[in-house]
Amino acid sequence: MQKKVFQLLVDNNVGVLSRISGLFARRGYSIESITAGITADPRFTRITIVAAGDELILVQIEKQLAKLIDVREIKELLPERSVYRELALIKVKVPVDDRQGVISLVDIFRANIIDVAPESIIIEMTGDQDKIDAFISLLEGFEILELARTGIAGLTRGTEKVTYL
Amino acid sequence: MQKKVFQLLVDNNVGVLSRISGLFARRGYSIESITAGITADPRFTRITIVAAGDELILVQIEKQLAKLIDVREIKELLPERSVYRELALIKVKVPVDDRQGVISLVDIFRANIIDVAPESIIIEMTGDQDKIDAFISLLEGFEILELARTGIAGLTRGTEKVTYL
Repeated sequence: MQKKVFQLLVDNNVGVLSRISGLFARRGYSIESITAGITADPRFTRITIVAAGDELILVQIEKQLAKLIDVREIKELLPERSVYRELALIKVKVPVDDRQGVISLVDIFRANIIDVAPESIIIEMTGDQDKIDAFISLLEGFEILELARTGIAGLTRGTEKVTYL
Repeated sequence: MQKKVFQLLVDNNVGVLSRISGLFARRGYSIESITAGITADPRFTRITIVAAGDELILVQIEKQLAKLIDVREIKELLPERSVYRELALIKVKVPVDDRQGVISLVDIFRANIIDVAPESIIIEMTGDQDKIDAFISLLEGFEILELARTGIAGLTRGTEKVTYL
């Protein structure tokens, strides 16, 4: 069982996401996380996929992805040569008179409180997956009402290769 | 032309992403951004989709999504009742002796420098789409080497409705 992070640059065509995710599904593989956002050039979308499974099958999927006509570029983001970041929004139930505990945790993790309601707050935090997992597990004494994570985006470190935007 | 943000809670099944993105593709609609990440309960994935198009067709797509057996819950995140956040990683070419301009911008936008190489730096920033767009356009005097955006994640404000994690 291997976890791989793929980064794709694709043409912003209708159905491109369906074709990409279909390749994983046909092999019986779940995508653990996916993020897709426009680049500085609106013709292209950059997609980051995290998938776990048998190494050989992941290599085969990578080759098949590279053959899709929408796919301009695909590379594996190796942990030792890349930065990964994820964003999480966490809604926590906290009565007004019991907020200090949550606020302390938010400060320690350099997270931000971005919404305050009478019964709850929304916390925004960024980090690698481990940091976000650690933060969420520390919040377990409080009631987490909702949680939305973006999945990771990543870039290779340095300037080994200059690619499209 | 209308832009809608949908939030889905889905069973973490093989192929779920393919089925969801296929519904958009069959209507000839591109997904502008998608984020999908596991929740506190690993059986479920929370997906945020931004799509633009004809309002009536988007309403039809929403109804069809709700009928998929993998989809536990779908709601539209209305701008006035939600917070949206996106994360961007931006690799900018900056020679060592010419970093001050970029660093000033990073400070003003409360972004972070998360990697420094001889010829380039990687900036991490979070915000709504407008803030990130504004930051990127201000960087235009510099050479942007690579850009990865997660697409937005969002939550409704307050505690109007408590849902699954």
